[in-house]
Amino acid sequence: MIDIEELKFDEKGLIPAIVQDYNTKQILMLAYMNKESLKLSLEKKETYFFSRSRNEIWHKGETSGNIQKIKNIFYDCDGDALLIEVEPKGPACHTGNVSCFYRSFLGKIENYDMEILKMLYERVKDRKTNPAEGSY
Amino acid sequence: MIDIEELKFDEKGLIPAIVQDYNTKQILMLAYMNKESLKLSLEKKETYFFSRSRNEIWHKGETSGNIQKIKNIFYDCDGDALLIEVEPKGPACHTGNVSCFYRSFLGKIENYDMEILKMLYERVKDRKTNPAEGSY
Repeated sequence: MIDIEELKFDEKGLIPAIVQDYNTKQILMLAYMNKESLKLSLEKKETYFFSRSRNEIWHKGETSGNIQKIKNIFYDCDGDALLIEVEPKGPACHTGNVSCFYRSFLGKIENYDMEILKMLYERVKDRKTNPAEGSY
Repeated sequence: MIDIEELKFDEKGLIPAIVQDYNTKQILMLAYMNKESLKLSLEKKETYFFSRSRNEIWHKGETSGNIQKIKNIFYDCDGDALLIEVEPKGPACHTGNVSCFYRSFLGKIENYDMEILKMLYERVKDRKTNPAEGSY
């Protein structure tokens, strides 16, 4: 097992931690850990992070009850990022969404698909009302 | 669609980007983007990152051929992290591993499971060679 000291924490003493649902494989959030919160996470088998805004250790779910039970913690080839597999007791996001990543950049592509579906629906509806000769 | 300008890049002009396999949901890597590499990624639909060590834009797979076709890009509730769903042409890691997260902290637990499996295998093998009366 790697020693925590071998991981590369940044100049603020932090390392990014990706949190993934162990069962669904959905990415829930990205947060940061310092050495102490990583040690706590390894010891308690629940996620503890370091809040950059509040400048303190933060036990995920302490107030909301939405704790994250840790199944495993992976570290990457450079030792400067963590991947934490968890079983969450509730939504990861403060907005109530299961994942913090609930909005996408390429939404227009999704809308485009919806436009095609809508066009298809209108076409079928029209053919039902006004059958075209030779059309199945 | 959110404007890139609304995202929160850090004091170095970077934002962390989690890369996930669109089909298997496996986490492949964590890398960083600056505005320019994000724009390139959105435009080319292939991943472009900013190399913190080489201090330059980096087209993933340019030399190895292991490019990552982008399916979608999500941003989190705070607008300070990205999740990129890709279809990779090959391993994401320079070590040849599919994912950069190929080592775990709680490896002992995995080994423990393997020990149990090994014990079970030995037990079954032994019972086959030396049947025990009253044992199914």
